[in-house]
Amino acid sequence: MQLWFSERETDNINVKWKVEQTLYSKKSQYQQIDIVEFTDFGRALILDGIIQTTVYDEFIYHEMIAHIPLCIHPNPKKVLVIGGGDGGTVREVLKHESVEKVDLVEIDKEVVDAARKYLPELAGCLEDPRVTVQNVDGFKFVQEKTSYYDVVIIDSSDPIGPAVGLFAKSFYKSVHKILKEDGLFVAQTESPLFNKELITDVYTGIKEIFPVQYLYTAGVPTYSIGPWTFTLGSKRYTKEKARTLNKKIGLKYFNEDVQKGAFLLPQYIKELL
Amino acid sequence: MQLWFSERETDNINVKWKVEQTLYSKKSQYQQIDIVEFTDFGRALILDGIIQTTVYDEFIYHEMIAHIPLCIHPNPKKVLVIGGGDGGTVREVLKHESVEKVDLVEIDKEVVDAARKYLPELAGCLEDPRVTVQNVDGFKFVQEKTSYYDVVIIDSSDPIGPAVGLFAKSFYKSVHKILKEDGLFVAQTESPLFNKELITDVYTGIKEIFPVQYLYTAGVPTYSIGPWTFTLGSKRYTKEKARTLNKKIGLKYFNEDVQKGAFLLPQYIKELL
Repeated sequence: MQLWFSERETDNINVKWKVEQTLYSKKSQYQQIDIVEFTDFGRALILDGIIQTTVYDEFIYHEMIAHIPLCIHPNPKKVLVIGGGDGGTVREVLKHESVEKVDLVEIDKEVVDAARKYLPELAGCLEDPRVTVQNVDGFKFVQEKTSYYDVVIIDSSDPIGPAVGLFAKSFYKSVHKILKEDGLFVAQTESPLFNKELITDVYTGIKEIFPVQYLYTAGVPTYSIGPWTFTLGSKRYTKEKARTLNKKIGLKYFNEDVQKGAFLLPQYIKELL
Repeated sequence: MQLWFSERETDNINVKWKVEQTLYSKKSQYQQIDIVEFTDFGRALILDGIIQTTVYDEFIYHEMIAHIPLCIHPNPKKVLVIGGGDGGTVREVLKHESVEKVDLVEIDKEVVDAARKYLPELAGCLEDPRVTVQNVDGFKFVQEKTSYYDVVIIDSSDPIGPAVGLFAKSFYKSVHKILKEDGLFVAQTESPLFNKELITDVYTGIKEIFPVQYLYTAGVPTYSIGPWTFTLGSKRYTKEKARTLNKKIGLKYFNEDVQKGAFLLPQYIKELL
Protein backbone atom coordinates (compact mmCIF):
# COMPACT_ATOMS: atom_id res chain seq x y z
CA MET A 1 0.00 0.00 0.00
CA GLN A 2 1.24 3.52 -0.85
CA LEU A 3 0.09 6.35 1.41
CA TRP A 4 0.10 9.93 0.11
CA PHE A 5 -0.79 13.08 2.04
CA SER A 6 -2.32 15.75 -0.18
CA GLU A 7 -2.21 19.41 0.83
CA ARG A 8 -4.43 22.03 -0.76
CA GLU A 9 -2.48 25.14 -1.85
CA THR A 10 -5.47 26.64 -3.63
CA ASP A 11 -8.68 25.01 -4.90
CA ASN A 12 -6.73 24.16 -8.04
CA ILE A 13 -3.21 23.31 -6.83
CA ASN A 14 -2.31 20.44 -4.50
CA VAL A 15 1.02 19.14 -3.26
CA LYS A 16 1.24 15.40 -2.55
CA TRP A 17 3.77 13.90 -0.14
CA LYS A 18 4.51 10.19 0.13
CA VAL A 19 4.05 9.03 3.72
CA GLU A 20 6.02 6.28 5.47
CA GLN A 21 3.84 6.13 8.59
CA THR A 22 1.36 8.02 10.72
CA LEU A 23 2.79 8.62 14.21
CA TYR A 24 -0.03 10.57 15.87
CA SER A 25 -3.55 11.58 14.97
CA LYS A 26 -6.01 13.35 17.28
CA LYS A 27 -8.82 15.86 17.13
CA SER A 28 -8.20 18.42 19.88
CA GLN A 29 -10.59 21.08 21.15
CA TYR A 30 -9.25 23.42 18.44
CA GLN A 31 -8.16 21.40 15.44
CA GLN A 32 -7.17 18.10 13.85
CA ILE A 33 -3.54 17.30 14.76
CA ASP A 34 -1.49 14.78 12.77
CA ILE A 35 2.18 13.89 12.91
CA VAL A 36 3.33 11.74 9.99
CA GLU A 37 6.67 10.71 8.55
CA PHE A 38 7.20 11.83 4.95
CA THR A 39 9.52 9.74 2.79
CA ASP A 40 11.50 12.81 1.69
CA PHE A 41 11.18 15.43 4.46
CA GLY A 42 10.86 13.22 7.56
CA ARG A 43 8.47 13.84 10.45
CA ALA A 44 5.88 16.55 9.84
CA LEU A 45 3.33 18.36 12.01
CA ILE A 46 0.01 18.83 10.19
CA LEU A 47 -2.84 20.95 11.61
CA ASP A 48 -6.27 20.80 9.94
CA GLY A 49 -4.65 19.28 6.86
CA ILE A 50 -1.97 21.98 6.49
CA ILE A 51 1.76 21.22 6.95
CA GLN A 52 3.20 23.36 9.78
CA THR A 53 6.75 22.08 9.80
CA THR A 54 8.96 19.13 8.81
CA VAL A 55 12.22 18.13 10.43
CA TYR A 56 13.96 18.42 7.03
CA ASP A 57 13.22 22.06 6.20
CA GLU A 58 12.04 23.60 9.50
CA PHE A 59 15.37 25.41 9.92
CA ILE A 60 14.47 27.83 7.14
CA TYR A 61 11.24 29.15 8.64
CA HIS A 62 12.36 29.04 12.28
CA GLU A 63 15.69 30.76 11.71
CA MET A 64 14.04 33.45 9.62
CA ILE A 65 11.16 34.23 11.99
CA ALA A 66 13.53 34.39 15.00
CA HIS A 67 16.90 35.82 13.96
CA ILE A 68 15.76 38.66 11.73
CA PRO A 69 13.82 40.46 14.52
CA LEU A 70 16.17 39.43 17.33
CA CYS A 71 19.20 40.80 15.45
CA ILE A 72 17.43 44.09 14.80
CA HIS A 73 16.95 44.50 18.57
CA PRO A 74 20.31 45.43 20.19
CA ASN A 75 19.67 43.60 23.46
CA PRO A 76 16.56 41.36 23.51
CA LYS A 77 15.88 39.99 27.00
CA LYS A 78 12.17 39.17 27.18
CA VAL A 79 10.60 37.47 24.18
CA LEU A 80 7.00 36.38 23.57
CA VAL A 81 6.21 33.68 21.00
CA ILE A 82 2.54 33.33 20.05
CA GLY A 83 1.61 30.07 18.34
CA GLY A 84 4.61 27.93 17.43
CA GLY A 85 3.63 25.09 19.76
CA ASP A 86 6.16 22.80 18.07
CA GLY A 87 8.96 24.72 19.82
CA GLY A 88 11.12 25.41 16.74
CA THR A 89 10.93 29.19 17.06
CA VAL A 90 11.70 29.11 20.79
CA ARG A 91 14.74 26.92 20.08
CA GLU A 92 16.15 29.63 17.78
CA VAL A 93 15.29 32.47 20.20
CA LEU A 94 17.28 30.72 22.95
CA LYS A 95 20.42 30.89 20.77
CA HIS A 96 20.65 34.61 21.63
CA GLU A 97 22.75 34.98 24.78
CA SER A 98 20.97 38.15 25.87
CA VAL A 99 17.60 36.37 26.16
CA GLU A 100 16.56 35.83 29.78
CA LYS A 101 12.90 34.84 29.42
CA VAL A 102 10.79 33.32 26.65
CA ASP A 103 7.03 32.99 27.03
CA LEU A 104 5.42 30.58 24.59
CA VAL A 105 1.67 31.16 24.26
CA GLU A 106 0.17 28.26 22.29
CA ILE A 107 -3.58 27.91 22.54
CA ASP A 108 -3.57 24.14 21.98
CA LYS A 109 -1.85 22.08 24.70
CA GLU A 110 -2.24 18.93 22.59
CA VAL A 111 0.08 20.41 19.92
CA VAL A 112 2.82 21.00 22.51
CA ASP A 113 2.39 17.55 24.01
CA ALA A 114 2.54 15.85 20.61
CA ALA A 115 5.63 17.87 19.63
CA ARG A 116 7.40 17.01 22.88
CA LYS A 117 6.91 13.33 22.10
CA TYR A 118 7.37 13.16 18.31
CA LEU A 119 9.40 16.26 17.41
CA PRO A 120 12.03 16.42 20.19
CA GLU A 121 14.52 18.29 17.91
CA LEU A 122 12.05 21.18 18.05
CA ALA A 123 10.22 20.87 21.37
CA GLY A 124 13.15 19.69 23.49
CA CYS A 125 14.11 23.33 24.12
CA LEU A 126 10.86 23.87 26.03
CA GLU A 127 12.53 22.27 29.07
CA ASP A 128 14.98 25.20 29.22
CA PRO A 129 14.52 27.09 32.52
CA ARG A 130 14.16 30.39 30.62
CA VAL A 131 10.99 29.09 28.90
CA THR A 132 7.40 29.22 30.19
CA VAL A 133 4.65 27.54 28.18
CA GLN A 134 1.09 28.83 28.58
CA ASN A 135 -1.85 27.24 26.80
CA VAL A 136 -4.06 30.28 26.48
CA ASP A 137 -5.46 32.39 23.65
CA GLY A 138 -2.72 34.68 22.26
CA PHE A 139 -5.30 37.28 21.28
CA LYS A 140 -6.39 37.62 24.92
CA PHE A 141 -2.90 37.20 26.38
CA VAL A 142 -1.53 40.32 24.71
CA GLN A 143 -4.34 42.44 26.17
CA GLU A 144 -3.31 41.72 29.74
CA LYS A 145 0.15 43.28 30.01
CA THR A 146 1.73 46.61 29.05
CA SER A 147 5.28 47.56 28.07
CA TYR A 148 6.74 44.17 28.95
CA TYR A 149 8.48 42.42 26.03
CA ASP A 150 11.45 43.39 23.86
CA VAL A 151 10.39 41.20 20.94
CA VAL A 152 7.09 39.48 20.04
CA ILE A 153 7.06 36.70 17.43
CA ILE A 154 3.71 35.68 15.95
CA ASP A 155 4.28 32.15 14.70
CA SER A 156 0.69 31.44 13.75
CA SER A 157 -0.97 28.92 11.49
CA ASP A 158 -2.93 30.13 8.45
CA PRO A 159 -5.64 32.80 8.93
CA ILE A 160 -8.43 30.26 9.25
CA GLY A 161 -9.50 28.36 12.36
CA PRO A 162 -7.86 29.23 15.72
CA ALA A 163 -5.35 31.73 14.22
CA VAL A 164 -7.78 34.07 12.49
CA GLY A 165 -7.66 36.75 15.24
CA LEU A 166 -3.87 36.91 14.97
CA PHE A 167 -4.14 38.75 11.65
CA ALA A 168 -6.50 41.49 12.90
CA LYS A 169 -5.48 45.12 13.29
CA SER A 170 -6.84 45.20 16.85
CA PHE A 171 -4.42 42.38 17.68
CA TYR A 172 -1.42 44.32 16.35
CA LYS A 173 -2.50 47.27 18.53
CA SER A 174 -2.35 45.02 21.60
CA VAL A 175 1.06 43.75 20.46
CA HIS A 176 2.21 47.39 20.27
CA LYS A 177 0.99 47.94 23.82
CA ILE A 178 2.67 44.83 25.26
CA LEU A 179 6.03 45.81 23.72
CA LYS A 180 8.48 48.06 25.56
CA GLU A 181 9.03 51.55 24.18
CA ASP A 182 11.81 50.26 21.93
CA GLY A 183 10.24 46.87 21.15
CA LEU A 184 9.52 45.21 17.83
CA PHE A 185 7.51 42.28 16.51
CA VAL A 186 7.30 39.98 13.52
CA ALA A 187 4.47 37.86 12.09
CA GLN A 188 4.44 35.18 9.40
CA THR A 189 2.23 36.60 6.66
CA GLU A 190 1.69 33.86 4.06
CA SER A 191 2.40 33.67 0.32
CA PRO A 192 2.81 36.73 -1.95
CA LEU A 193 1.20 34.77 -4.79
CA PHE A 194 -1.85 33.34 -3.05
CA ASN A 195 -2.50 35.78 -0.16
CA LYS A 196 -1.88 39.15 -1.78
CA GLU A 197 -4.75 40.94 -0.07
CA LEU A 198 -3.76 39.70 3.38
CA ILE A 199 -0.18 40.94 2.91
CA THR A 200 -1.37 44.36 1.79
CA ASP A 201 -3.88 44.60 4.66
CA VAL A 202 -1.41 43.55 7.37
CA TYR A 203 1.34 45.85 6.06
CA THR A 204 -1.01 48.82 5.80
CA GLY A 205 -2.36 48.14 9.29
CA ILE A 206 1.10 47.86 10.83
CA LYS A 207 2.19 51.06 9.09
CA GLU A 208 -0.52 52.91 10.98
CA ILE A 209 0.61 51.49 14.34
CA PHE A 210 4.44 51.23 14.14
CA PRO A 211 6.81 53.92 12.83
CA VAL A 212 9.11 51.30 11.20
CA GLN A 213 7.80 48.39 9.11
CA TYR A 214 9.38 45.83 6.77
CA LEU A 215 8.36 42.86 4.69
CA TYR A 216 10.92 40.13 4.13
CA THR A 217 10.88 36.75 2.41
CA ALA A 218 12.35 33.24 2.49
CA GLY A 219 11.81 30.17 0.34
CA VAL A 220 10.07 27.64 2.60
CA PRO A 221 9.52 24.44 0.56
CA THR A 222 6.75 22.98 2.69
CA TYR A 223 4.65 26.13 2.94
CA SER A 224 3.89 26.95 -0.64
CA ILE A 225 5.23 26.89 -4.13
CA GLY A 226 7.06 30.23 -4.41
CA PRO A 227 8.36 32.40 -1.53
CA TRP A 228 6.92 33.03 1.94
CA THR A 229 6.62 36.41 3.69
CA PHE A 230 7.16 37.86 7.16
CA THR A 231 6.02 41.31 8.26
CA LEU A 232 7.91 43.24 10.95
CA GLY A 233 6.87 46.31 12.92
CA SER A 234 9.32 48.22 15.12
CA LYS A 235 8.96 51.13 17.52
CA ARG A 236 12.53 52.35 17.16
CA TYR A 237 15.21 50.05 15.74
CA THR A 238 15.84 49.70 12.01
CA LYS A 239 17.41 46.90 9.99
CA GLU A 240 20.43 49.00 9.05
CA LYS A 241 21.92 48.62 12.53
CA ALA A 242 21.18 44.91 12.97
CA ARG A 243 23.57 42.90 15.12
CA THR A 244 25.41 40.01 13.49
CA LEU A 245 25.29 36.55 15.03
CA ASN A 246 28.19 34.42 16.17
CA LYS A 247 28.70 31.85 13.40
CA LYS A 248 29.41 29.13 15.92
CA ILE A 249 25.76 28.73 16.93
CA GLY A 250 25.26 26.47 13.93
CA LEU A 251 22.77 28.17 11.60
CA LYS A 252 21.80 26.52 8.32
CA TYR A 253 19.89 29.37 6.64
CA PHE A 254 20.49 32.72 8.34
CA ASN A 255 23.76 34.59 7.83
CA GLU A 256 24.93 38.18 7.27
CA ASP A 257 24.00 38.04 3.58
CA VAL A 258 20.47 36.83 4.33
CA GLN A 259 20.14 39.55 6.96
CA LYS A 260 20.46 42.08 4.13
CA GLY A 261 19.08 40.12 1.18
CA ALA A 262 15.77 39.03 2.73
CA PHE A 263 14.52 42.64 2.60
CA LEU A 264 15.41 43.15 -1.07
CA LEU A 265 12.07 42.43 -2.71
CA PRO A 266 11.04 41.53 -6.26
CA GLN A 267 8.89 44.11 -7.98
CA TYR A 268 5.62 42.12 -7.76
CA ILE A 269 6.00 41.88 -3.98
CA LYS A 270 6.95 45.56 -3.57
CA GLU A 271 3.78 46.45 -5.39
CA LEU A 272 1.69 44.75 -2.67
CA LEU A 273 2.99 47.26 -0.08
CA MET B 1 -15.10 15.59 -15.23
CA GLN B 2 -12.14 17.12 -13.36
CA LEU B 3 -8.74 17.00 -15.08
CA TRP B 4 -5.56 17.27 -13.01
CA PHE B 5 -1.99 17.36 -14.28
CA SER B 6 0.45 15.79 -11.85
CA GLU B 7 4.14 16.73 -11.93
CA ARG B 8 6.81 14.64 -10.24
CA GLU B 9 9.17 16.76 -8.08
CA THR B 10 10.90 13.70 -6.62
CA ASP B 11 9.75 10.06 -6.41
CA ASN B 12 7.91 11.08 -3.23
CA ILE B 13 6.60 14.59 -3.90
CA ASN B 14 4.12 15.55 -6.63
CA VAL B 15 2.43 18.83 -7.47
CA LYS B 16 -1.06 18.62 -8.98
CA TRP B 17 -2.57 21.36 -11.14
CA LYS B 18 -6.23 21.54 -12.12
CA VAL B 19 -6.56 21.74 -15.89
CA GLU B 20 -9.26 23.60 -17.82
CA GLN B 21 -8.35 22.21 -21.25
CA THR B 22 -5.62 20.64 -23.32
CA LEU B 23 -4.67 22.91 -26.22
CA TYR B 24 -1.89 20.92 -27.89
CA SER B 25 -0.38 17.48 -27.49
CA LYS B 26 2.27 15.95 -29.73
CA LYS B 27 5.23 13.62 -29.56
CA SER B 28 8.08 15.27 -31.46
CA GLN B 29 11.37 13.69 -32.50
CA TYR B 30 12.82 14.71 -29.14
CA GLN B 31 10.09 14.74 -26.52
CA GLN B 32 6.40 14.79 -25.60
CA ILE B 33 5.06 18.37 -25.94
CA ASP B 34 1.85 19.47 -24.24
CA ILE B 35 0.25 22.87 -23.87
CA VAL B 36 -2.61 22.95 -21.36
CA GLU B 37 -4.56 25.65 -19.59
CA PHE B 38 -4.28 25.50 -15.80
CA THR B 39 -7.18 26.89 -13.78
CA ASP B 40 -4.85 29.03 -11.62
CA PHE B 41 -1.75 29.79 -13.72
CA GLY B 42 -3.20 29.85 -17.26
CA ARG B 43 -1.56 28.34 -20.33
CA ALA B 44 1.46 26.14 -19.61
CA LEU B 45 4.14 24.48 -21.75
CA ILE B 46 4.92 20.95 -20.55
CA LEU B 47 7.82 18.88 -21.96
CA ASP B 48 8.06 15.17 -21.07
CA GLY B 49 5.69 15.77 -18.17
CA ILE B 50 7.65 18.70 -16.66
CA ILE B 51 6.24 22.25 -16.57
CA GLN B 52 8.53 24.63 -18.49
CA THR B 53 6.57 27.83 -18.12
CA THR B 54 3.11 29.26 -17.42
CA VAL B 55 1.78 32.60 -18.58
CA TYR B 56 1.05 33.52 -14.93
CA ASP B 57 4.53 33.20 -13.44
CA GLU B 58 6.88 33.08 -16.46
CA PHE B 59 8.01 36.66 -15.80
CA ILE B 60 9.99 35.55 -12.75
CA TYR B 61 12.21 33.02 -14.50
CA HIS B 62 12.56 34.91 -17.79
CA GLU B 63 13.42 38.25 -16.20
CA MET B 64 15.95 36.60 -13.90
CA ILE B 65 17.74 34.52 -16.52
CA ALA B 66 17.98 37.52 -18.90
CA HIS B 67 18.47 40.74 -16.94
CA ILE B 68 21.01 39.58 -14.36
CA PRO B 69 23.66 38.64 -16.97
CA LEU B 70 22.73 41.40 -19.44
CA CYS B 71 23.05 44.09 -16.75
CA ILE B 72 26.46 42.77 -15.70
CA HIS B 73 27.67 43.25 -19.30
CA PRO B 74 28.19 47.00 -19.97
CA ASN B 75 27.17 46.85 -23.64
CA PRO B 76 25.68 43.53 -24.81
CA LYS B 77 25.18 43.46 -28.59
CA LYS B 78 25.19 39.83 -29.69
CA VAL B 79 23.31 37.35 -27.52
CA LEU B 80 22.89 33.59 -27.89
CA VAL B 81 19.97 31.79 -26.20
CA ILE B 82 20.22 27.99 -26.10
CA GLY B 83 16.95 26.18 -25.39
CA GLY B 84 14.11 28.50 -24.45
CA GLY B 85 12.02 27.65 -27.51
CA ASP B 86 8.98 29.32 -25.94
CA GLY B 87 10.57 32.72 -26.63
CA GLY B 88 10.21 34.18 -23.11
CA THR B 89 13.93 34.69 -22.58
CA VAL B 90 14.41 36.27 -26.02
CA ARG B 91 11.55 38.67 -25.25
CA GLU B 92 13.41 39.92 -22.15
CA VAL B 93 16.78 40.11 -23.98
CA LEU B 94 15.22 42.38 -26.61
CA LYS B 95 14.32 44.92 -23.90
CA HIS B 96 18.01 45.92 -23.80
CA GLU B 97 18.53 48.72 -26.31
CA SER B 98 22.16 47.80 -26.97
CA VAL B 99 21.19 44.35 -28.29
CA GLU B 100 21.57 44.11 -32.09
CA LYS B 101 21.31 40.37 -32.67
CA VAL B 102 19.75 37.44 -30.80
CA ASP B 103 20.30 33.86 -31.96
CA LEU B 104 17.84 31.37 -30.51
CA VAL B 105 19.11 27.80 -30.77
CA GLU B 106 16.26 25.43 -29.86
CA ILE B 107 16.74 21.84 -30.91
CA ASP B 108 13.02 21.12 -31.25
CA LYS B 109 11.20 23.06 -33.98
CA GLU B 110 7.87 21.69 -32.77
CA VAL B 111 8.30 23.54 -29.44
CA VAL B 112 8.80 26.85 -31.22
CA ASP B 113 5.85 26.24 -33.56
CA ALA B 114 3.55 25.32 -30.67
CA ALA B 115 4.66 28.38 -28.67
CA ARG B 116 4.08 30.72 -31.64
CA LYS B 117 0.50 29.46 -31.84
CA TYR B 118 -0.48 28.99 -28.17
CA LEU B 119 1.91 31.23 -26.20
CA PRO B 120 2.05 34.42 -28.30
CA GLU B 121 2.89 36.58 -25.22
CA LEU B 122 6.20 34.70 -25.15
CA ALA B 123 6.93 33.68 -28.73
CA GLY B 124 5.58 36.79 -30.47
CA CYS B 125 9.00 38.44 -30.06
CA LEU B 126 10.56 35.84 -32.37
CA GLU B 127 9.26 37.90 -35.34
CA ASP B 128 11.59 40.76 -34.32
CA PRO B 129 14.15 41.39 -37.12
CA ARG B 130 17.02 41.13 -34.62
CA VAL B 131 16.09 37.48 -33.89
CA THR B 132 17.21 34.35 -35.78
CA VAL B 133 15.77 30.98 -34.78
CA GLN B 134 17.82 27.87 -35.55
CA ASN B 135 16.57 24.38 -34.79
CA VAL B 136 19.88 22.67 -34.21
CA ASP B 137 21.66 21.01 -31.29
CA GLY B 138 23.03 23.68 -28.91
CA PHE B 139 25.86 21.40 -27.86
CA LYS B 140 27.12 21.24 -31.47
CA PHE B 141 26.26 24.87 -32.27
CA VAL B 142 28.66 26.30 -29.68
CA GLN B 143 31.56 24.29 -31.14
CA GLU B 144 31.33 25.99 -34.52
CA LYS B 145 32.18 29.62 -33.75
CA THR B 146 34.86 31.44 -31.76
CA SER B 147 34.84 34.77 -29.92
CA TYR B 148 31.46 35.83 -31.25
CA TYR B 149 28.84 36.54 -28.53
CA ASP B 150 28.75 39.03 -25.66
CA VAL B 151 26.31 36.98 -23.60
CA VAL B 152 25.17 33.34 -23.79
CA ILE B 153 22.01 32.25 -21.94
CA ILE B 154 21.44 28.54 -21.41
CA ASP B 155 17.71 28.24 -20.92
CA SER B 156 17.58 24.46 -20.89
CA SER B 157 15.07 21.95 -19.64
CA ASP B 158 16.04 19.54 -16.84
CA PRO B 159 19.26 17.48 -17.19
CA ILE B 160 17.46 14.46 -18.63
CA GLY B 161 16.47 13.86 -22.26
CA PRO B 162 17.59 16.35 -24.93
CA ALA B 163 19.19 18.80 -22.44
CA VAL B 164 21.62 16.44 -20.70
CA GLY B 165 24.68 17.64 -22.69
CA LEU B 166 23.99 21.25 -21.68
CA PHE B 167 25.18 20.50 -18.11
CA ALA B 168 28.55 18.96 -19.14
CA LYS B 169 31.90 20.63 -18.46
CA SER B 170 32.94 20.15 -22.11
CA PHE B 171 29.88 22.22 -23.08
CA TYR B 172 30.87 25.10 -20.77
CA LYS B 173 34.34 25.03 -22.38
CA SER B 174 32.73 25.53 -25.79
CA VAL B 175 30.60 28.34 -24.34
CA HIS B 176 33.81 29.97 -23.10
CA LYS B 177 35.28 29.73 -26.61
CA ILE B 178 32.23 31.17 -28.37
CA LEU B 179 32.18 34.20 -26.04
CA LYS B 180 34.17 37.33 -26.80
CA GLU B 181 37.15 38.10 -24.56
CA ASP B 182 34.91 40.03 -22.17
CA GLY B 183 31.82 37.81 -22.50
CA LEU B 184 29.75 36.07 -19.87
CA PHE B 185 27.09 33.37 -19.68
CA VAL B 186 24.36 32.09 -17.41
CA ALA B 187 22.63 28.72 -17.07
CA GLN B 188 19.56 27.62 -15.16
CA THR B 189 20.84 25.09 -12.63
CA GLU B 190 17.83 23.52 -10.90
CA SER B 191 16.78 23.30 -7.23
CA PRO B 192 19.20 23.66 -4.29
CA LEU B 193 17.10 21.14 -2.34
CA PHE B 194 16.70 18.39 -4.92
CA ASN B 195 19.72 18.83 -7.25
CA LYS B 196 22.53 19.59 -4.79
CA GLU B 197 25.16 17.52 -6.56
CA LEU B 198 24.42 19.09 -9.94
CA ILE B 199 24.78 22.61 -8.52
CA THR B 200 28.11 21.75 -6.88
CA ASP B 201 29.42 20.05 -10.04
CA VAL B 202 28.41 22.88 -12.39
CA TYR B 203 29.79 25.58 -10.09
CA THR B 204 33.09 23.76 -9.60
CA GLY B 205 33.39 23.15 -13.35
CA ILE B 206 32.69 26.79 -14.21
CA LYS B 207 35.20 27.94 -11.59
CA GLU B 208 37.91 26.08 -13.50
CA ILE B 209 36.96 27.72 -16.81
CA PHE B 210 35.87 31.29 -15.94
CA PRO B 211 37.70 33.70 -13.61
CA VAL B 212 34.40 35.10 -12.22
CA GLN B 213 31.49 32.89 -11.14
CA TYR B 214 28.25 33.45 -9.22
CA LEU B 215 25.20 31.51 -8.12
CA TYR B 216 21.94 33.40 -7.72
CA THR B 217 18.38 32.42 -6.87
CA ALA B 218 14.73 33.29 -7.48
CA GLY B 219 11.47 31.79 -6.26
CA VAL B 220 9.83 30.23 -9.33
CA PRO B 221 6.50 28.72 -8.24
CA THR B 222 6.07 26.31 -11.14
CA TYR B 223 9.58 24.87 -11.04
CA SER B 224 9.84 23.44 -7.60
CA ILE B 225 8.84 23.89 -4.02
CA GLY B 226 11.61 26.11 -2.64
CA PRO B 227 13.96 28.38 -4.62
CA TRP B 228 15.55 27.92 -8.06
CA THR B 229 19.18 28.58 -9.00
CA PHE B 230 21.12 30.13 -11.87
CA THR B 231 24.90 29.86 -12.33
CA LEU B 232 26.86 32.59 -14.07
CA GLY B 233 30.40 32.56 -15.45
CA SER B 234 32.13 35.73 -16.62
CA LYS B 235 35.47 36.40 -18.31
CA ARG B 236 35.84 39.93 -17.00
CA TYR B 237 32.81 41.81 -15.65
CA THR B 238 31.63 41.50 -12.06
CA LYS B 239 28.24 42.07 -10.48
CA GLU B 240 29.44 45.08 -8.52
CA LYS B 241 29.42 47.26 -11.64
CA ALA B 242 26.10 46.06 -13.06
CA ARG B 243 24.09 48.54 -15.11
CA THR B 244 20.63 49.47 -13.87
CA LEU B 245 17.63 49.15 -16.17
CA ASN B 246 15.20 51.85 -17.20
CA LYS B 247 12.11 51.28 -15.06
CA LYS B 248 9.85 52.11 -17.98
CA ILE B 249 10.42 48.79 -19.72
CA GLY B 250 7.77 47.23 -17.49
CA LEU B 251 9.46 44.60 -15.35
CA LYS B 252 7.45 42.64 -12.79
CA TYR B 253 10.26 40.87 -10.89
CA PHE B 254 13.67 42.37 -11.61
CA ASN B 255 14.69 45.70 -10.05
CA GLU B 256 17.77 47.25 -8.45
CA ASP B 257 17.12 45.48 -5.16
CA VAL B 258 16.83 42.08 -6.84
CA GLN B 259 20.03 42.81 -8.77
CA LYS B 260 21.85 42.87 -5.42
CA GLY B 261 19.68 40.54 -3.34
CA ALA B 262 19.62 37.55 -5.70
CA PHE B 263 23.31 36.91 -4.98
CA LEU B 264 22.91 36.99 -1.18
CA LEU B 265 22.60 33.28 -0.44
CA PRO B 266 21.27 31.32 2.54
CA GLN B 267 23.85 29.25 4.37
CA TYR B 268 22.66 25.86 3.06
CA ILE B 269 23.08 27.07 -0.53
CA LYS B 270 26.49 28.67 0.12
CA GLU B 271 27.65 25.34 1.44
CA LEU B 272 26.98 23.71 -1.94
CA LEU B 273 29.62 25.93 -3.57
